[in-house]
Amino acid sequence: MGSKAYSVKDSHAFVETFTLPSYRTGPLDGMTFAVKDNIEIAGTRTSYGSKSWQDTHPDAVHNALCVEQLLGAGASCIGKTVADEFTYSLTGENPFFGTPLNPGAPDHVPGGSSSGSASAVACGICDFAIGTDSAGSIRVPASFCGIWGMRPTLHRISEAGILPFMPSVSTVGAFANTIDVLGKVMRVLLRSRPKPFGGINNIFLLEDAFSVADPAVRAAIENSICNLSCAHGVTVSKVSANDIFGSDYDLIAANERALRILQTAEFASTVGSWIDTVEADVSPGFALAYQNVQHQDRSTVNEALDLCEYLFARILDFMGPDDLICTPTTPSPAPLKASMTSAVQFQNFYDRTMALTSFAGVGRAPEISIPAASVDGLPVGVSLIARHYEDEFLLEAAKVLFAPDCERQPD
Amino acid sequence: MGSKAYSVKDSHAFVETFTLPSYRTGPLDGMTFAVKDNIEIAGTRTSYGSKSWQDTHPDAVHNALCVEQLLGAGASCIGKTVADEFTYSLTGENPFFGTPLNPGAPDHVPGGSSSGSASAVACGICDFAIGTDSAGSIRVPASFCGIWGMRPTLHRISEAGILPFMPSVSTVGAFANTIDVLGKVMRVLLRSRPKPFGGINNIFLLEDAFSVADPAVRAAIENSICNLSCAHGVTVSKVSANDIFGSDYDLIAANERALRILQTAEFASTVGSWIDTVEADVSPGFALAYQNVQHQDRSTVNEALDLCEYLFARILDFMGPDDLICTPTTPSPAPLKASMTSAVQFQNFYDRTMALTSFAGVGRAPEISIPAASVDGLPVGVSLIARHYEDEFLLEAAKVLFAPDCERQPD
Repeated sequence: MGSKAYSVKDSHAFVETFTLPSYRTGPLDGMTFAVKDNIEIAGTRTSYGSKSWQDTHPDAVHNALCVEQLLGAGASCIGKTVADEFTYSLTGENPFFGTPLNPGAPDHVPGGSSSGSASAVACGICDFAIGTDSAGSIRVPASFCGIWGMRPTLHRISEAGILPFMPSVSTVGAFANTIDVLGKVMRVLLRSRPKPFGGINNIFLLEDAFSVADPAVRAAIENSICNLSCAHGVTVSKVSANDIFGSDYDLIAANERALRILQTAEFASTVGSWIDTVEADVSPGFALAYQNVQHQDRSTVNEALDLCEYLFARILDFMGPDDLICTPTTPSPAPLKASMTSAVQFQNFYDRTMALTSFAGVGRAPEISIPAASVDGLPVGVSLIARHYEDEFLLEAAKVLFAPDCERQPD
Repeated sequence: MGSKAYSVKDSHAFVETFTLPSYRTGPLDGMTFAVKDNIEIAGTRTSYGSKSWQDTHPDAVHNALCVEQLLGAGASCIGKTVADEFTYSLTGENPFFGTPLNPGAPDHVPGGSSSGSASAVACGICDFAIGTDSAGSIRVPASFCGIWGMRPTLHRISEAGILPFMPSVSTVGAFANTIDVLGKVMRVLLRSRPKPFGGINNIFLLEDAFSVADPAVRAAIENSICNLSCAHGVTVSKVSANDIFGSDYDLIAANERALRILQTAEFASTVGSWIDTVEADVSPGFALAYQNVQHQDRSTVNEALDLCEYLFARILDFMGPDDLICTPTTPSPAPLKASMTSAVQFQNFYDRTMALTSFAGVGRAPEISIPAASVDGLPVGVSLIARHYEDEFLLEAAKVLFAPDCERQPD
């Protein structure tokens, strides 16, 4: 534990605490973890970040399969963490359950939607935490809170016992304070077998992503990755999304014309259907965001689905199994709490952030956010993205490049 | 249409009929299709093959994304088809909604759980139909009804708007009477782009699968595939699961020690939780089958998950992108209706059938069942399986080998 220890109460990260002991020994022996509250824990009521959902759904009967994996590998669960309302947000501010503490930037949001899981780890309350990521919900809070976070290859981890959200983009992932812990946890969840690491061939800096970021973030991230790559003798070069996708599409197009339309349509089919049917009690902020979902013309989904598939194929063609793409995880450090008050500010925040998170989204690719940079004392993550199914390579590459420089003690 | 035309009523294939017109022109112009009733159609109540589910759930708000894809590609939807109770069966007999007609073998079951979709196509009522397949629910009825059916690569088609079943194994797929129609439909759903076909490198007959089958089925399938392969100059050789998986695991182990445990645990998390919570009204047959789900020790799931991942990796290592695995789709033709009356008979049917369907299950691989064989006048399918993500190659290979010999007019 670091210099300052936070209590569960001080962290505002938890919906409920309990002890669910491990039932087997394994690689996670002695570790504790927390679970985002859209992942079922037997005998507890899943909130999905919504009081209305919590009040109208029964207790879960079983633990989600990913929770069983962790309990069966030596780890014990200490509680369930706050999520953004319906996990449909990237800020980490929840009007019903409160805003989990970002201990490295206490006046700033923690990022969401796996806000409580990131906070619990950053506050040093547990060794690791699990969450879900569809449009950045692990990567963004990892970046804002200055911890390690990984979104693995789409669908490599069972989603049984996780409330359906966006079936074509949602994944289970994890947070930790060190790559060592993150690697152990992810290898359990991914059921990795030992595999030789042959080194990193290329690191490509995705220019479109750097252009979207604040100049200070751009400089900090470039500095971090270039120094480390030089030290390890890895070739770093720049690439634009046009080089990968072809001249018709840049990163903004990938997000706005493909992934985001798919995400919106899938959310309408899952949570949206429930909201509309029961006329659920939602917060004003959510109601505003939800208008886009309600007013989507679903006949436009075909083009978006086609484009997603095309962009996925182009990324597979471009990236070798030992290549990495590097981007800033988020275009800026965490905004101040309650600082986004207008629709325009929200729109700007989401457009910029989701442009960056969209690359791994369309690539169905693993991404790790590394706490390797800061701007004005606020953390911001360096993201490394590997090819679809190259999760084990990515974990090893991140370790080679960034440990122990970015091993940190929790605040 | 073939010599005998069946009415919707005679087919017993439909829960509800209506006309949902296409809203764009496209490659499916003028075609009609039916939808398994676990896939949402806006404004209708999804039954999931259960009266109890149907009575306690609201009307769907949106069409599932896969339905939007088809409507947006020129096809019109004519109705929703009977599914086995909770889609948790492979026989096609539903005590609430009746047993859809198998027109090629009217005294026999159609196979399930996409029973009504297979029947609707076999009866010539629509050009194609969509269903879902977790443990054989498209492949088995395709085999029993003597039509084409495809289960694509896991998760290549959006599952938004489809009731959650077994998240790590469930896929959307389709039935048709010709490979031409099947190919057009699957290419829309998979959003395929034209890709050169470089020919078939190897066809491997999976010995374990042939051993499980009835001797007459074995002979019929071997005869069919070997004649065609010779005619097309493709090398056919035998392979055992040991050759692929290593000496510790055969096909029975892959099914019983890996996939089936995962399937059971995932079903418990999705439908099982609901059944237990509301104490749903289920049929005696389902209640019997469900005992295995209720009594599963979930701490055993870790080993099964690990083994699934290992076997998946071994199949990837073994198969080249232009290789095919061939098996009988089912070990026998369709059983007589109401002929399985004891738990032992059911157990035997499922053990044998799911051993065969498990290969594509652990391989997350595409499989097509081809109406290329019969035994005593009853259809039985020849299955071709390609590598993970090689769906387009599989469609082309099936066409090269089997069209026009297996183009059929619906009964």
